[in-house]
Amino acid sequence: MSHTSINPSTLLAPTPVVLVGCATQAEKANLITVAWVGTVNSKPPMVSVSIQPIRHSYHLIKESGEFTVNLVSRELLHATDFCGVKSGRDMDKFAECNLTAIKAEGLTLAPAVEESPLYLSCKVRESLNLGSHTMFVGEIVHVGVRSDLIDEEGKIHLNKANLVAYAHGNYYGLAERLGFFGYSVARPEVFKRRMEEG
Amino acid sequence: MSHTSINPSTLLAPTPVVLVGCATQAEKANLITVAWVGTVNSKPPMVSVSIQPIRHSYHLIKESGEFTVNLVSRELLHATDFCGVKSGRDMDKFAECNLTAIKAEGLTLAPAVEESPLYLSCKVRESLNLGSHTMFVGEIVHVGVRSDLIDEEGKIHLNKANLVAYAHGNYYGLAERLGFFGYSVARPEVFKRRMEEG
Repeated sequence: MSHTSINPSTLLAPTPVVLVGCATQAEKANLITVAWVGTVNSKPPMVSVSIQPIRHSYHLIKESGEFTVNLVSRELLHATDFCGVKSGRDMDKFAECNLTAIKAEGLTLAPAVEESPLYLSCKVRESLNLGSHTMFVGEIVHVGVRSDLIDEEGKIHLNKANLVAYAHGNYYGLAERLGFFGYSVARPEVFKRRMEEG
Repeated sequence: MSHTSINPSTLLAPTPVVLVGCATQAEKANLITVAWVGTVNSKPPMVSVSIQPIRHSYHLIKESGEFTVNLVSRELLHATDFCGVKSGRDMDKFAECNLTAIKAEGLTLAPAVEESPLYLSCKVRESLNLGSHTMFVGEIVHVGVRSDLIDEEGKIHLNKANLVAYAHGNYYGLAERLGFFGYSVARPEVFKRRMEEG
């Protein structure tokens, strides 16, 4: 199993792909599709999103200091791809994509996407200019889960959300569940029970 | 489609899950499993990995200023889960998991994983203490692709790598390809050709 050298490039995969919502008081709500996004801290929970300064949404986030991260299901993929190639300078992306802007709990300006399975309300805590992109580190101040994905005991069933991943320029659905964190050291009866639970 | 409020938490999904390789001159090579990883810049290409200071690997990366990011296939998943729950203070993870440490091109100390489909050699450019985790931002100075995943024309076939994603405590395979970046605005003949190419 030898490796071939190729030019350095952004080949981490799979990555998430999300709709980032943003707005200012002067500018109407916008959406930008971001795959350069990741969890960066657990306590407090934080995510980073990296955006080119040339993008319309960059200024909205810079000025407002807030954004939402909206997870993407298969049903949202067409709109998500569209929001990645078009600019909010030229159109109202919510209207164009038939998406509904709702109030993101915990934030003042940035909207969440009603059709998204789950959204994170984020307040910018750091921003770092890294070259082509500026990385905004946002603290997750609120999470909204689509009500059909959470049961009466408060357990979240994200496996029912039909989430999409991104890898090397392509979008993929998620396939079967292969294990859970810690499965490699779980006792056989625990492994069996947890895998059956789904 | 209403949303239910839950406590703020790290619910970005799906995320990557990778094996991070690291070493110092004094300490032997180690592996740590990281899902808090993301692409953060395109030019130059950069990734961030977030690690708790209590982890053995934290000091190895802090001291050496380098690490590798090794993508995870289904074949590597058991070892990857194991490397996420065990500490390199107590064992040689490469030996324990039957993995092979190879030289990572472009780096001095941190090893790559021979069995991984693709590795990124990274040099630390920034580090940010965010609370529970420190985020290391690494510039990707080299990429190694397993030779069976790249054809004679240099095209990478990452879809053959059987990559794994992580979502809300569970590991999933990738399912079918749903589209490519820009598919929502592609002309019908381009869409057809690109989707057939795979």
